[in-house]
Amino acid sequence: MPKTVTACVLLIGDEILSGRTRDSNLAYIANHLNKIGIQVREARVIPDVEETIVAVLNEVRARHDYVFTTGGIGPTHDDITADAVAKAFGVPIGHHPEAVKILGDHYKATGGEFTAARMRMARLPEGATMIENPLSKAPGFQIGNVFVMAGVPMVMQVMLDSLTGRLEGGATMQSRTVTGQIGEGTIAEKLGELQAKHPDVGIGSYPYYRGRSFGTSIVMRATDSTKLERVAAEVAALMRAFGVEPQTGDPA
Amino acid sequence: MPKTVTACVLLIGDEILSGRTRDSNLAYIANHLNKIGIQVREARVIPDVEETIVAVLNEVRARHDYVFTTGGIGPTHDDITADAVAKAFGVPIGHHPEAVKILGDHYKATGGEFTAARMRMARLPEGATMIENPLSKAPGFQIGNVFVMAGVPMVMQVMLDSLTGRLEGGATMQSRTVTGQIGEGTIAEKLGELQAKHPDVGIGSYPYYRGRSFGTSIVMRATDSTKLERVAAEVAALMRAFGVEPQTGDPA
Repeated sequence: MPKTVTACVLLIGDEILSGRTRDSNLAYIANHLNKIGIQVREARVIPDVEETIVAVLNEVRARHDYVFTTGGIGPTHDDITADAVAKAFGVPIGHHPEAVKILGDHYKATGGEFTAARMRMARLPEGATMIENPLSKAPGFQIGNVFVMAGVPMVMQVMLDSLTGRLEGGATMQSRTVTGQIGEGTIAEKLGELQAKHPDVGIGSYPYYRGRSFGTSIVMRATDSTKLERVAAEVAALMRAFGVEPQTGDPA
Repeated sequence: MPKTVTACVLLIGDEILSGRTRDSNLAYIANHLNKIGIQVREARVIPDVEETIVAVLNEVRARHDYVFTTGGIGPTHDDITADAVAKAFGVPIGHHPEAVKILGDHYKATGGEFTAARMRMARLPEGATMIENPLSKAPGFQIGNVFVMAGVPMVMQVMLDSLTGRLEGGATMQSRTVTGQIGEGTIAEKLGELQAKHPDVGIGSYPYYRGRSFGTSIVMRATDSTKLERVAAEVAALMRAFGVEPQTGDPA
């Protein structure tokens, strides 16, 4: 049986905690990792405060197979993630020759000035390897089981893509969704019995509202697709027993 | 000087960690609390696992003035937040007579069946007080400094509204945004100097991309509006020194 591989996502940035920016990276990362058999078990949003980043990172990197961070690797004074990660690992940080070259070439080609501030983006903790950024060139990096990525969604996404082949997944969590125009409270008791009968398939119940129509989506998750299909069929049958025609997938 | 009041937000739910649901509650709660002088300093996304909820809740409720949770208070087997919170506080949980009456009246009025599963939503930890839910009636609750709310955004929002007057804020964090079509790397060094000169105004730098146009939003945050205006003016002057006309607020 393939092993379970877990991850923690750290969203680093005052702008998420202040409510200025609504995060979209967590859902993207979770979906991406799911496909390759890595399960996000925990996520934290933390401020741009060095001691917090150091403490939280050291806590979660010991607990999970992988840690993915977003945010705080730009050129400005509030971009302190790389320094904090170096501190967490107890290693020095310095300019990475290849990163300096990539950025230097980029600014030469685009006519931008390669300022000291931009040069900051070529600093990596000792022992780190670059994560390629085909979009805006300034790299992310990997050190140990920690992957440090940009906060800007489209940059984060190309970095995640460039990690293809570097991440080792385990059992792939699959999911099925069965939706029906039925109240959660109506189906709840029978659904709880189904969950008790199938402990290795996670059954989640999510109510939805669409104007005057409402209903419930039942989401089943498991690594074993045969068991998953069996439980999905039982949930569909359960809805029919209540006189509701189930549909596959999320509410239309 | 008004004191600083801090909060932690706990987003409870497998569906957020799996990537199925993109959370919108954190940004809403943070903005709401900001207005009444409560600063969100930390947020965590955790699964529907009792021992995790108990451990994390006990950790964060000791560290912050307030904790706000979302998710896991519906009628189904995966709604375990109320039980976990009772366990964290070391108190029993049982049917709350007023909550039972509210829900009973609701289902009588709407013609729904008041099932045992729906009755579960009237269970509150001993010593908890209800948080009113004008929308779908099933209440949230407060125990100690912990406020337990629904995960469905519109239900969470009416619960948060119904807390008006029950939360005691401190210094109100205010913010100003100055935006210009200038690269972060261009302005970074001078901006760092400004931050060093004004340590009690937080200065954040956020690049944006709009098709072919790009630029940077500088967000300043402080409890003292006089200082805030002064720094905003200096940032605007800094952009003009680079030949860029600043605008107030986020990029158009």
